[in-house]
Amino acid sequence: MTIAFTFAEILALVAPERSLGCMGEAPMEITGIAALDQAGPRDLTFLGNRKYTAQVPGTKACIVLLPLDYDGVPRDGQVFLFVKDPSHALARLCAQTEARLWPRPSPGIHPTAIIAPGARLGANLHVGPYCVIGENAVLGDGCILEAFNHIGREAKLGADNWLKPRATVGEYCETGARVKLQVGALVGGDGFGWEMAGGAYKKIPQIGTVVLEDDVEVGANSTIDRARFSTTRIGEGTKIDNLVQIGHNCLVGRHCILVSQSGLAGSTVLEDYVALAGQAGLAGHLRIGKGAQIGAQCGVMSDIPAGAVVLDSPALPVKTAFRLMALKQRLPELFKRVGNLEAHLGLK
Amino acid sequence: MTIAFTFAEILALVAPERSLGCMGEAPMEITGIAALDQAGPRDLTFLGNRKYTAQVPGTKACIVLLPLDYDGVPRDGQVFLFVKDPSHALARLCAQTEARLWPRPSPGIHPTAIIAPGARLGANLHVGPYCVIGENAVLGDGCILEAFNHIGREAKLGADNWLKPRATVGEYCETGARVKLQVGALVGGDGFGWEMAGGAYKKIPQIGTVVLEDDVEVGANSTIDRARFSTTRIGEGTKIDNLVQIGHNCLVGRHCILVSQSGLAGSTVLEDYVALAGQAGLAGHLRIGKGAQIGAQCGVMSDIPAGAVVLDSPALPVKTAFRLMALKQRLPELFKRVGNLEAHLGLK
Amino acid sequence: MTIAFTFAEILALVAPERSLGCMGEAPMEITGIAALDQAGPRDLTFLGNRKYTAQVPGTKACIVLLPLDYDGVPRDGQVFLFVKDPSHALARLCAQTEARLWPRPSPGIHPTAIIAPGARLGANLHVGPYCVIGENAVLGDGCILEAFNHIGREAKLGADNWLKPRATVGEYCETGARVKLQVGALVGGDGFGWEMAGGAYKKIPQIGTVVLEDDVEVGANSTIDRARFSTTRIGEGTKIDNLVQIGHNCLVGRHCILVSQSGLAGSTVLEDYVALAGQAGLAGHLRIGKGAQIGAQCGVMSDIPAGAVVLDSPALPVKTAFRLMALKQRLPELFKRVGNLEAHLGLK
Repeated sequence: MTIAFTFAEILALVAPERSLGCMGEAPMEITGIAALDQAGPRDLTFLGNRKYTAQVPGTKACIVLLPLDYDGVPRDGQVFLFVKDPSHALARLCAQTEARLWPRPSPGIHPTAIIAPGARLGANLHVGPYCVIGENAVLGDGCILEAFNHIGREAKLGADNWLKPRATVGEYCETGARVKLQVGALVGGDGFGWEMAGGAYKKIPQIGTVVLEDDVEVGANSTIDRARFSTTRIGEGTKIDNLVQIGHNCLVGRHCILVSQSGLAGSTVLEDYVALAGQAGLAGHLRIGKGAQIGAQCGVMSDIPAGAVVLDSPALPVKTAFRLMALKQRLPELFKRVGNLEAHLGLK
Repeated sequence: MTIAFTFAEILALVAPERSLGCMGEAPMEITGIAALDQAGPRDLTFLGNRKYTAQVPGTKACIVLLPLDYDGVPRDGQVFLFVKDPSHALARLCAQTEARLWPRPSPGIHPTAIIAPGARLGANLHVGPYCVIGENAVLGDGCILEAFNHIGREAKLGADNWLKPRATVGEYCETGARVKLQVGALVGGDGFGWEMAGGAYKKIPQIGTVVLEDDVEVGANSTIDRARFSTTRIGEGTKIDNLVQIGHNCLVGRHCILVSQSGLAGSTVLEDYVALAGQAGLAGHLRIGKGAQIGAQCGVMSDIPAGAVVLDSPALPVKTAFRLMALKQRLPELFKRVGNLEAHLGLK
Repeated sequence: MTIAFTFAEILALVAPERSLGCMGEAPMEITGIAALDQAGPRDLTFLGNRKYTAQVPGTKACIVLLPLDYDGVPRDGQVFLFVKDPSHALARLCAQTEARLWPRPSPGIHPTAIIAPGARLGANLHVGPYCVIGENAVLGDGCILEAFNHIGREAKLGADNWLKPRATVGEYCETGARVKLQVGALVGGDGFGWEMAGGAYKKIPQIGTVVLEDDVEVGANSTIDRARFSTTRIGEGTKIDNLVQIGHNCLVGRHCILVSQSGLAGSTVLEDYVALAGQAGLAGHLRIGKGAQIGAQCGVMSDIPAGAVVLDSPALPVKTAFRLMALKQRLPELFKRVGNLEAHLGLK
């Protein structure tokens, strides 16, 4: 773990209803959180799921978060803390750790930040070293730009955005509130539109923008292209992992999740609550219905109805895909059976 | 859209042969371009394809570009502009918009640019904030380096290159004229060559370069590795999308197109006019013939003849691939039919 | 090639046992290394593999490295250098070229580097322009940070790390000795962990770190996420190519190789000496046994035993995969044969 806690801090955060055991006299710190069977003597662990109950007596952790009805005693130098919901108690500890890992930087503009004329800066901003803000760009209240961020001319960030180093927002693009851009993420790259003319590709100008709605997160080194015209849009609450590509004019709904290395070609529409697993690829101009789940490495070449779960390339309903995978593996048997039939009939 | 146009500006750019309708008294601006069925009351739209003619009467756009022979009348507050070719008229408007979206920055070297001794800078350069130019690097006339660009020692950029923020050109690499590198693109990364020796990987030095010929474009966060020796080469007019990987010693021909997340392993040759769709992957040391088209997510493990269109992993001619996909889906039926035959003959 | 050598330099590096031929009077330089059939008149070439012996007489190279027993004579203006092992002689030449291509920069801290209070800097460091080092970060002796590097608070780099431009190490992450991070590589991005709560994704804090052991290399624009808690770990000597994704809590063993655009979902374990080919994707929570080889575009959805070689999506043993690929291509024939059987029996 990234941060050490003293026993007193843990007690304050966990607020156990009772405890058992004693950690000895030395002033104690835990320096990690780990699963029951992986924890070492300076780690805290927890029983989050009853099926691991048998692992509690063997854990080496010095502190164990347990449900109120757990029946057992700690080893020497180990403390049991009993709480209503060990997972919730752990979550409080993790949230506190996260706040220490990435404390909110104090407001201020680093002297190396270059801010063009006409940029409008909200209150309580943190703009770190070597950021470049273009003309007439707008940064909402409470935004954090860590370092090396480039905000294009006329771009407009909502309140409380957090941009990790090197995240970039292109000209005229807009973000809602609480948007988070991970390291190297690009919002508003040029669209990839070409037409062949006289033996060479000629650029189709890409003059639209990208809009990220509230609470969108874009992963490290992912790229979201601006629209040919109008808008590439990512709906409220959608979370995008690392190295994902979103083509021009895609419309991604609310509360979607796009796992690493997945990609959307141009103009594809994801309705709300769609999930793309890792390395899934979708052709352009498709519509993926609400809540559809697209499996890992899936190749989608046609529309998918709401709620469907698909797999394979090209994509098939998951049940069909699994059935066909099983039958494919029985092809050697099938060839043999057909050969036997032919032999039986003297046909070969 | 990223830029507003007044009605007078649109008239000047579109140069209609005649018009119909009236937008009312207020000084008017359009602020978007959109398809007939998606346009709002401040958008301009166009009839680019006759098959959408029926959508014209219902469009909400305030300006509609129409072919000369279109027969109909505008709504109140709507204007029809009649031109020979609505798509061409739109293209002029888009090109003008693009020039406003990304105006050519004025020449000059930002005071924070760090330029090593021996670097030779052409005329009319724009070098933006926080660029780093290595020793003896050459920047051709008219190059634009927007920000955070790193040009390695002895690298040589041709005239009128445009590097978006963070684009990087490695040591000794060369580009032709009018090359465009999108955000975070890397030209001339280290090649990935290793040999196993004594239980550990030992680096095979990668001492070649990358050459991009005229009018090449490299997408955001894409990576092109330098050759083991001699040259990784991207031919004239080839366009590379985002998150594409080009391995060491690849020779990509002229006017190829490589769509997002596709990848080439080392030493593969693409002849001219090859197209790779999204997430296609090619093994090393292959030759892909002129004009071949490699489908999305295709896995290519052997040479592909000129003009071939392939799909699937491993790649098959597209007609074969589609036929096999169809037959694969009929496997349950085939198993049943074989079972019936066996039953009929009392074999099972 | 990136560097010219004089004939005298080549002789010194190659140390031939004998030579044949004469390059004429002019002071001579070679400016490239190339294969026998590709070399031009200013290139050096070599006979590394006996199967290319027939190409020696036709090569245009001015210098040819040959095994001691090669029987032949050079053309006019060509020199044969006879050595015990031409490949080893070439390797010395390449290593020397690499040292010229990427000479070790001299120690020193560029005045534009921003170093936070509490950072501890080792001896003989090179910190280039526009680097940002966080509070209490530690840089081991001999580290090279080329430019635009961001080292997070409390991160700790071992000795002799080499960070190419824009490589980034997140807060609290740690590296061993001789780690190399290519351009734009990210070590210690936020993990991608979410739980759906009340119709929206809620972040699961990712409070662990990343540890890279000695001699790890991470490719350009690749991303390695920090652990949910505890550690995402990359074992000693493992080499990672460009655009690779490593999810939170993965444990990658020693001397693994991960080729470009491959990806690991969270918590997957690679034992030592595992190889992932390009675009391979592995689901989460898997264990891949020692020395297993995962083929290109392979989709791995379950554990793989040590030493296995797998292909296809979902992954199958390579022999099975090839057999099934062959049978799949014979499906049209099989359908026909079953039809014939049915016709023969009057069943259809």
